[in-house]
Amino acid sequence: MPDFMQLAFVEAEDAAKRGEVPVGAVLVSPKGDVLARTGNRTEEFGDPTAHAEMLVIREAGKVLSSPRLIDCDLYVTLEPCAMCAAAISFARLRRVYFAAYDPKGGAVDHGPRFFSQPTCHHAPEVIGGMDEQKASDLLKRFFAEKRE
Amino acid sequence: MPDFMQLAFVEAEDAAKRGEVPVGAVLVSPKGDVLARTGNRTEEFGDPTAHAEMLVIREAGKVLSSPRLIDCDLYVTLEPCAMCAAAISFARLRRVYFAAYDPKGGAVDHGPRFFSQPTCHHAPEVIGGMDEQKASDLLKRFFAEKRE
Repeated sequence: MPDFMQLAFVEAEDAAKRGEVPVGAVLVSPKGDVLARTGNRTEEFGDPTAHAEMLVIREAGKVLSSPRLIDCDLYVTLEPCAMCAAAISFARLRRVYFAAYDPKGGAVDHGPRFFSQPTCHHAPEVIGGMDEQKASDLLKRFFAEKRE
Repeated sequence: MPDFMQLAFVEAEDAAKRGEVPVGAVLVSPKGDVLARTGNRTEEFGDPTAHAEMLVIREAGKVLSSPRLIDCDLYVTLEPCAMCAAAISFARLRRVYFAAYDPKGGAVDHGPRFFSQPTCHHAPEVIGGMDEQKASDLLKRFFAEKRE
């Protein structure tokens, strides 16, 4: 099986090259096919909702012609925010694998902890902290370069 | 000044006619121009993120060529969910006017109460409960018809 988190890192690095916050995501079908992969594009699209997770969920919905991505899995290099966590729930994803924890904006293990809310009607299985150091280094390098 | 909430209701009713959950939204510029207006399109687009609020935020971002919709206001017929609340925050909207409260899925006055979280970095002014009965009746009628 390919290493989907590594594909997500490639997308995150490409996002950094475009001047976007370096987060990448890959959406995988129950059979293990990559349905969509991309990085953040909020600046490119002038779209505050264009986080990597949102873009792959939207793209996979098109591929499957359904807003419900039953038993699909998401790999993303950063803990999802509240927007993406809710979209993950609406999409009925099976599992979410993420790399770096995000105490400032994450909504899975921080802040609203969306999947634990009584108003969350579908919670995926979550595996957090994979390759955390790599994801964290990528983000730190990006913001350090931004400040130079 | 036009009644923007009434425009949002027109969009909600059009959404119901398309078989979508009847929620409508209007995004208004600081000068009072309608930048975008639409209803839910999750089924039509096969896109779980295609809530009315998300679509008007994305469209207005295109109109203004920026992911930050500074001092713009949103009118929506239902209390925003966590996904839309986070997008509203990212878009830096000034005010959110909503009609019906949504105890089951709302994230402004219910569940994660996103704008009150320490991980929420911009909270708009919120005016909830405008024309609540009308919005609530529209939703109830839609779901009653769905069950027939």
